[in-house]
Amino acid sequence: MVTLAVDAMGGDFGPDVTVPAVLRALSEQQDLRVLLFGNQEKLQSMVGPRNVDRLTICHSEQIIGMGESPAVALRTKKQSSMAMMLNAVSAGQADGCVSAGNTGALMALSRHILKTTESIDRPAIISALPREDGKHTFVLDLGANVGCDSEQLYQFAVMGQAVAQVLDGSRKPSVALLNIGSEEIKGNDQVKAANDLLRADTTLNYLGYVEGSDLFRDKVDVVVCDGFVGNVALKTIEGLARYIISEVRREFSRNWWSRILGMLVVPLWRKLESRINPSGYNGAAFVGLRGVVVKSHGNADAIEFNQAISAARQYVDKKLPEKIENLLR
Amino acid sequence: MVTLAVDAMGGDFGPDVTVPAVLRALSEQQDLRVLLFGNQEKLQSMVGPRNVDRLTICHSEQIIGMGESPAVALRTKKQSSMAMMLNAVSAGQADGCVSAGNTGALMALSRHILKTTESIDRPAIISALPREDGKHTFVLDLGANVGCDSEQLYQFAVMGQAVAQVLDGSRKPSVALLNIGSEEIKGNDQVKAANDLLRADTTLNYLGYVEGSDLFRDKVDVVVCDGFVGNVALKTIEGLARYIISEVRREFSRNWWSRILGMLVVPLWRKLESRINPSGYNGAAFVGLRGVVVKSHGNADAIEFNQAISAARQYVDKKLPEKIENLLR
Repeated sequence: MVTLAVDAMGGDFGPDVTVPAVLRALSEQQDLRVLLFGNQEKLQSMVGPRNVDRLTICHSEQIIGMGESPAVALRTKKQSSMAMMLNAVSAGQADGCVSAGNTGALMALSRHILKTTESIDRPAIISALPREDGKHTFVLDLGANVGCDSEQLYQFAVMGQAVAQVLDGSRKPSVALLNIGSEEIKGNDQVKAANDLLRADTTLNYLGYVEGSDLFRDKVDVVVCDGFVGNVALKTIEGLARYIISEVRREFSRNWWSRILGMLVVPLWRKLESRINPSGYNGAAFVGLRGVVVKSHGNADAIEFNQAISAARQYVDKKLPEKIENLLR
Repeated sequence: MVTLAVDAMGGDFGPDVTVPAVLRALSEQQDLRVLLFGNQEKLQSMVGPRNVDRLTICHSEQIIGMGESPAVALRTKKQSSMAMMLNAVSAGQADGCVSAGNTGALMALSRHILKTTESIDRPAIISALPREDGKHTFVLDLGANVGCDSEQLYQFAVMGQAVAQVLDGSRKPSVALLNIGSEEIKGNDQVKAANDLLRADTTLNYLGYVEGSDLFRDKVDVVVCDGFVGNVALKTIEGLARYIISEVRREFSRNWWSRILGMLVVPLWRKLESRINPSGYNGAAFVGLRGVVVKSHGNADAIEFNQAISAARQYVDKKLPEKIENLLR
């Protein structure tokens, strides 16, 4: 039995998305329990009058807004759905948690309530991107830290390697720094200094610099960058994938002949779309914390939020935080 | 008649790419002259023994390597193909120039030889991305400046607006800052300070923050970012587009049925590919300089380098630098 704490109030749509997603997850996974944090009345009205097996609604008075400052949230929102969800993990009542809420606040509260792994200063957000050989590339940080110094980038590399070892089972994953060229002279000061730190650590399988175009190639297992850069790259990927998918749909509905062709290629295209579509990859992990914290997109729909729940479940099953901590020792 | 100076030695492949591209451009455009800068012997051997109409080979002793430091290039490479190409523009022998060489060196030499537009501290690289309404979004800076302060970002917004006015003919193009969220609290210090500067300038049609996913939407005409972020975003787009195109090709060659389907959808797919394929967009402009300078990708092939030549031609025809200077007054 796995117990997940879920922040029902986070994200752009709050309970309208999180409640259906949780109900779906509970019906799909018979060995899952959910502690759902949010406004009791609102949540109960959405769940319906009957008790749902393995679902506990936990009332929280406060909500953290998407535009709220993390520092203010940390100080004044101790009774929020997000803080109470993290407290449940910290107290051992839940094995992990999922929120689509304010990223900065989730980061600040996670550090405060769960604490970081030993030797790690700042947690990072990591996710896996599809690549041409059918495997994937782990990228971090995807937005937890805007502005990282070289030491933080170095720690991200170490954590990324540990995540790839645990989730992919690869023995010595390769690591690279994301830069604007592969030559040594390229990049800003932080990236150059991180390059020196990484080169000096012979326990890492460090390859040097890669560029944005290398993310989808069979070139490197873990790519490290500042959270600002990583977040822009990730959202650009999502935007382009969505644009291409909509262009294809438009092209195949132009006239009767293209519509017939469209029907014929549906099975092929579905397969492709599922690999390209970034919503199939919702549920990035916060790593470097003493507990499983999964961040869903703020604008996720119920299917995507359900994927984030599944991701959290997977990280709990694989004991991700404990294994990372062991590898970092 | 338009005269372009071309750096034959720049890029990953040098004359193997630039010479065929120039020959093609000359045969396509009867009112084009080219001054081709590089090793006379090498270039002559590739062009062949006969004189080519409207082509002048200009010998240069030196080459600037792709990994060379811009400061060293500026000091020691006055006889390089790149420097001599820029001198030809500065002296009025050419109306504009194209290089696939070292971006940092091209930036440093351009500033030194051509000088920046009045009121602009640092030139930026700008290019247009396709978007869902069939128009495009201008993005700058795409890699000329790693690490920009708020004042530079502000100047990029002003230049971007001018470029959109000149190239798209839109009267009051909208401008936005690329950030990791649309809320005011998001972003690093430079972006937040630039946001304040842009809000304060009422002559701009400033919309606030956009995210990477908004680049392909009908949301804003000009997107401003630091050159590190912009370069990563651009190359990520190229990488993803290439990945998707290769996935589609692979899917359509899996078995006899998918191959037949593939043949049927070729005309549709070609149309889509030409819109998605980033190589159709080669030839980014350096703006903020007193002259037309176009930067081709280092790894461009002859067709792509030819597109960069066409882009330079277009900017010369539209008198881009003069018009930007007038708009900035």
